[in-house]
Amino acid sequence: MNNFTYYNPTKVYFGRDTIKNIGRELRENGIRKVMLVCGRQSIFSTGVYDRVSASLVGWHVDFIRFSGIQANPILSKVQEGIKLARQQEVDAVLAVGGGSVFDSAKVIAAGVKYDGDVWDLFTGQARIEEALPIFGVLTLSATGSEMNGNAVITKADENKKWGIGSRHLYPRVSIIDPEFQSTLSARDTVNGAVDILSHVFELYFDGSKNVELMQEYSEAIIRTVMKYIKILLADPDDYEARAQIAWAATLALNNSNGTGRRGGDWASHDIEHSVSAFYNVAHGAGLAVVTPAWMRYVYQEDLETFARFAEKIFNITTGTQEEKALQAIEQLIKFFQEIGAPVTLKELGVQYEDLEKMAENAVQQRSLGRLKKLQKEDVLTIYKMAYK
Amino acid sequence: MNNFTYYNPTKVYFGRDTIKNIGRELRENGIRKVMLVCGRQSIFSTGVYDRVSASLVGWHVDFIRFSGIQANPILSKVQEGIKLARQQEVDAVLAVGGGSVFDSAKVIAAGVKYDGDVWDLFTGQARIEEALPIFGVLTLSATGSEMNGNAVITKADENKKWGIGSRHLYPRVSIIDPEFQSTLSARDTVNGAVDILSHVFELYFDGSKNVELMQEYSEAIIRTVMKYIKILLADPDDYEARAQIAWAATLALNNSNGTGRRGGDWASHDIEHSVSAFYNVAHGAGLAVVTPAWMRYVYQEDLETFARFAEKIFNITTGTQEEKALQAIEQLIKFFQEIGAPVTLKELGVQYEDLEKMAENAVQQRSLGRLKKLQKEDVLTIYKMAYK
Repeated sequence: MNNFTYYNPTKVYFGRDTIKNIGRELRENGIRKVMLVCGRQSIFSTGVYDRVSASLVGWHVDFIRFSGIQANPILSKVQEGIKLARQQEVDAVLAVGGGSVFDSAKVIAAGVKYDGDVWDLFTGQARIEEALPIFGVLTLSATGSEMNGNAVITKADENKKWGIGSRHLYPRVSIIDPEFQSTLSARDTVNGAVDILSHVFELYFDGSKNVELMQEYSEAIIRTVMKYIKILLADPDDYEARAQIAWAATLALNNSNGTGRRGGDWASHDIEHSVSAFYNVAHGAGLAVVTPAWMRYVYQEDLETFARFAEKIFNITTGTQEEKALQAIEQLIKFFQEIGAPVTLKELGVQYEDLEKMAENAVQQRSLGRLKKLQKEDVLTIYKMAYK
Repeated sequence: MNNFTYYNPTKVYFGRDTIKNIGRELRENGIRKVMLVCGRQSIFSTGVYDRVSASLVGWHVDFIRFSGIQANPILSKVQEGIKLARQQEVDAVLAVGGGSVFDSAKVIAAGVKYDGDVWDLFTGQARIEEALPIFGVLTLSATGSEMNGNAVITKADENKKWGIGSRHLYPRVSIIDPEFQSTLSARDTVNGAVDILSHVFELYFDGSKNVELMQEYSEAIIRTVMKYIKILLADPDDYEARAQIAWAATLALNNSNGTGRRGGDWASHDIEHSVSAFYNVAHGAGLAVVTPAWMRYVYQEDLETFARFAEKIFNITTGTQEEKALQAIEQLIKFFQEIGAPVTLKELGVQYEDLEKMAENAVQQRSLGRLKKLQKEDVLTIYKMAYK
């Protein structure tokens, strides 16, 4: 087990009728004026916005609205938010939405406190030294952004979908009411589940040794998500299934499952980011396509873990380690198909002739992967394996 | 799943050579003078004390020593610590030792800030409104005190071993270096493992519904501890086994595994506390005796979970739920015997004629249990079942 430091100061309210706590929490944290960051539509139709604003009004917290955040949130929108937050002199940002909204709110919070162009924080030209306090009400469980210090933003003109992380970007308080996720489309629900699974895979398959307990935790999340996503597809209103998946999403990426590891692989995420950057596909959809292809490309680097995965997740107990590994990857693809996730780049509308520049783009920030270091040619091969 | 609030602000350093961080952390937290709370001997012989004091000196943090904390720490000693902390006007307490030292340090930290008798905080006559900042260096993984807000103290003259919990009692920083646990005796190591398992059992068997992910996490901890304790008994210097058990101990009782549950059962702990209060046996030893007896007394209240336990932990797949449950309890006793833990009260030196007053004592603070509410007669029956 590697040495680690674990620190996660986010306070989480989880469950039914918990949104009402947001006003009090802001007030108790000394916030007088907050910028409410949100998307375009859903929080208004589901009643989430009404609950949040009622709580803010009830606790005498002023707020301004910054709406219109989209999936794969873009830098120019974040820059607009930073400008508004400065003009309005808000004390904090409040994300109300899914991972894209949380990520945008985080980058706005950091950007307000940084004098230069906020993109400098992504390129490494500057470090995040401070940020406005961040609060959140989550409406789509997937990214884990509600309880970590990470954010991903797309610089659209350069097709760069890049991430940052900082201890200053942990939300102080996040509220997760699974009940409000019952109106999500099957597609959003499935994409969320794939994203959660992918976060676990990135940690599980990073080649770490002596992390038995964390491998067990990972398998616990994988089995739970695979079980409950099917229940949810049959009955989107099943609160208990929503709750299991929602809490799994948070635990998958709140650092707890990363303790003692090498830091995760993250190649599948980076390879997917390049797909999303070019084609604006949903992150979860892209991951369902990319992850099994990545697995087929790298499984020989850690046959033991892939064979273990086969046993613990798919009950594959016969055959050589290699046979088990390959069977498990096929089973995973089959599972993605069963829940209606895409499994080829072609299904996502990707043009074969774009694969080369997508691969070039993917390795632009750095070389990828930990289990196996990937250069452009590796990524291109994975794209080709994922194509049809 | 029940609603819950999760908040755990303790920062944990885990791994080899991490003790050196303590001085810097105290300094960065603005601490100028700290009371180092410790036991009698082991931290001096293992070199832990030297490392801690070197780090404090290096970072110019003054400290005074308050040593002599024993297993099943007692109120009068804590009161002495409170007096000393006040006289010396320390800014914080630093626990260096195992769970008893952490618990004593926590109660000292709360007691310094409370004008009356610190026992009032246990009886409910007063609430913990504040506490000195608490820091810790852990040398025996078992109680989980390093990452939670709980403490247990014994009022010896009344045979009361009672607990308190408060958000003010979370350590700000805890350091866990498993390497320094290699000198622990087999007995201490085993008692620690039993304590960890018992914490998980208290949560796992509390009758909660719809907590699939947390049941999976619980099973992960149980399997991990049962596997690595045997490795440790064969080779006490196996760092990786120490590390697995150490992190399992923290995760077993840092609230994460409690999320969404009914709050845990805790009857076995309370029943054991009365044994320890009368006979000063090690908490883990008492739990190895009491827990299976409690299970035999209550298993019919939740056959499904006991049968699940049989399947997931002992691979018992045939028979009725009841048969599985009973087999699993027998297997657990067998496991305790294999690792050298006591399994009868007689082995602990308990006199049969004391059972009655022990039972009376156990229910003094409140009625026990959640899966099944236990009154004095129930506890007496459990003691009798555990006797020989």
